[in-house]
Amino acid sequence: MRAMIGTWRMSLGGVARGLGLLEAGADCLDAVTEAVAFVEDDPAFTSVGFGGLPDREGCVTADAALMDGGTLRLGGVMSAQNIRNPIRAARRLVERAENCLLAGEGAQRFAREAGLEMQDLRTPQALARWREALAQRDAVRQPYRGHDTVCVLALDEAGRMAAGTSTSGLFLKEPGRVGDSPLVGSGFYCDARYGAAAATGLGEEIMRGCLSYEVVSLMRRGAGPHDACVRALRGLQARLKRQGETMRDVSLIALTPAGIFGAATSLRVFPFAAGKDGAAEVYLAGSDGQTRRASPGEADAQP
Amino acid sequence: MRAMIGTWRMSLGGVARGLGLLEAGADCLDAVTEAVAFVEDDPAFTSVGFGGLPDREGCVTADAALMDGGTLRLGGVMSAQNIRNPIRAARRLVERAENCLLAGEGAQRFAREAGLEMQDLRTPQALARWREALAQRDAVRQPYRGHDTVCVLALDEAGRMAAGTSTSGLFLKEPGRVGDSPLVGSGFYCDARYGAAAATGLGEEIMRGCLSYEVVSLMRRGAGPHDACVRALRGLQARLKRQGETMRDVSLIALTPAGIFGAATSLRVFPFAAGKDGAAEVYLAGSDGQTRRASPGEADAQP
Repeated sequence: MRAMIGTWRMSLGGVARGLGLLEAGADCLDAVTEAVAFVEDDPAFTSVGFGGLPDREGCVTADAALMDGGTLRLGGVMSAQNIRNPIRAARRLVERAENCLLAGEGAQRFAREAGLEMQDLRTPQALARWREALAQRDAVRQPYRGHDTVCVLALDEAGRMAAGTSTSGLFLKEPGRVGDSPLVGSGFYCDARYGAAAATGLGEEIMRGCLSYEVVSLMRRGAGPHDACVRALRGLQARLKRQGETMRDVSLIALTPAGIFGAATSLRVFPFAAGKDGAAEVYLAGSDGQTRRASPGEADAQP
Repeated sequence: MRAMIGTWRMSLGGVARGLGLLEAGADCLDAVTEAVAFVEDDPAFTSVGFGGLPDREGCVTADAALMDGGTLRLGGVMSAQNIRNPIRAARRLVERAENCLLAGEGAQRFAREAGLEMQDLRTPQALARWREALAQRDAVRQPYRGHDTVCVLALDEAGRMAAGTSTSGLFLKEPGRVGDSPLVGSGFYCDARYGAAAATGLGEEIMRGCLSYEVVSLMRRGAGPHDACVRALRGLQARLKRQGETMRDVSLIALTPAGIFGAATSLRVFPFAAGKDGAAEVYLAGSDGQTRRASPGEADAQP
C-alpha cells in the first residue's frame, strides 16, 4: 500500500507527483520532499516557497521540516531566507543526530554549503501585495492572513512513513517569527508504528495544543485517523472556549500505517488532496466533522 | 499550595528565589521568569545565559521559552544573541496571540525595542574554553557536551501554573542550531488542569518523543508525575532500543496542580531542586527510576 495526503488543494500536484515517485520505488522521505518542493516551486501558491508572502519588512522567510517515521529523526529550517526549496534543506538535516534544526543565517549557510539552490523567494506579485497591504489603513489591513502551510504525509510499500511541511508563514509577520510548521509535535509528527499527522492554520494556536503529536497519540491509543483529528481539534477548541476564546483557523490531516487518512478543521471547509496507489483527488473536510470527495467543480474552486 | 521545581543543582538559587516571590504573592509567570533569570545571570553556570558556552564560531546564542498553563499561551526566543536574559524576552512574548516565537535577529530586535538589557553573553572564561576545545584534535574534542537547560515549573496559591526554559544550547553547536528548549511539547508543556513538564539533555533526542507533552498527556490520563516522567522516558528509550540505538542524555521533571513533583533520567544521576511553600532542596533522580533527597554533601557535589 502506498498513500499520500497533503493540505489544501494546492498540494494536489505535489501529491500526484509524490505518489508517482512512490510507485517508481522512491524512498518515502524523498517522495515527501519532492511533493512539497513541487508546491514550493509554484509561485501561484502565495504561502509557500517561491512567491511566498513577505513579512512586515518585505522579506520572505521560510519554515520547513521533515520527519522520518521509521527512525523518529527530523530536520528543519526556520526563519530562513533565500533557500529555493526549504524542504530540501530539511531533507539533508533529517540525516543528522545533532544540529538538525537550524534558524536564520545558520540555516541559509547550511543550505549554501550543502549546494542547495539559493534564490530570493520574492516575486514582483508578492512584493506588490506587500506594498498594497502596507498602504492600507490599520483598520482595513488584514495581516496574518494567508498562512496556509503545505503539509504532506506519506506511506510507502515497505510501511515506511514520513511527514513534511513548508510555509512562508503569516503574511506581514514580525521579522524572525517562527510558526508551528518547523516545530515537531505542533506542525507535524510521524511514527510509522501509529501514523503521521500535520497541521495548517494559525501556528500560534496549533502550538498551544501540540496538535500533531496529540493526533498521533490518539491513533496510538486506537483512534482512527479521522476521529483522532476531530478529537484533537475539538479538545483544544473546548479548552479555549472555556476561557472565553474562539479557536482560530486550524486544520489537521492524518494518515495511518494502513493507508487510511483523515482530516478535521475549524474552517467551514478545508480542502486537501489524497490518494492511494493511483491518482490523487481533492477532498473537503467541513467544520461539522464530515469529509467527502470534492466534485470536479468544487475541487477547482478551492485554494 | 505553592510549589516549584527546577532542573539541575544550578537551579537551586533560582527556585528558592521563585518560591520567595510566590510567597510574596507574585504572579506565577513572573516567579518562573525570575527563577530562570537568576540562573541566567550567574556566569558560573556555563550552559545558560551570561557565561554560556559558545557555538562553533565562538558566539553564544540562546533559546528560551515560557508557557502559561492557565491560558496555554507561550512565548519564546531561539538562536538569539546578546539578550542578557532570554527568559525576559519570552515573558514579554507570552502576552501575544501572534508572533510569540522569534528567532535570531528578529528576537534580538524585539528585545532591544522592548527595552530589555542587551549584553554580549560571552565571558573571558567561556571564550577560553571555546579556544581550548578548538585547539584539541577532533578525536579528543567533545562537542555537544554541556547542554544543561535550566527548566523551572511552578504552581501558585491560586492554582496557576507556568513552565520556563533557558539554555545556550550545545557547546560548539552549529551556528543557528535550535534545541528542544524553545519548542513547545518537546522542551516544555504546561496545562494548569493537568500539570507541567520540562526536559533537559540532548534536544535532538528529546524532540523525537515530544517528551514534555507526553508527560503532561500521561498525567492527564491519570499517571502521577514521577510515573509519567518514567513512562515517557522509558517509552522513547524502548523505541530507540528496538532500532539499535541507545538513548542519549535525557532528563525530565514534572509538577502537578496538587504540587506533587516527579523526575526521570537516562543519566546515572540527575539532580534537581524542588520546594513547597518553604525552602528549596536538592533531590537526586537515578536511572533506576528512584528519586531521593540529596544529603548536604551530595547536593554540593552536583552540577
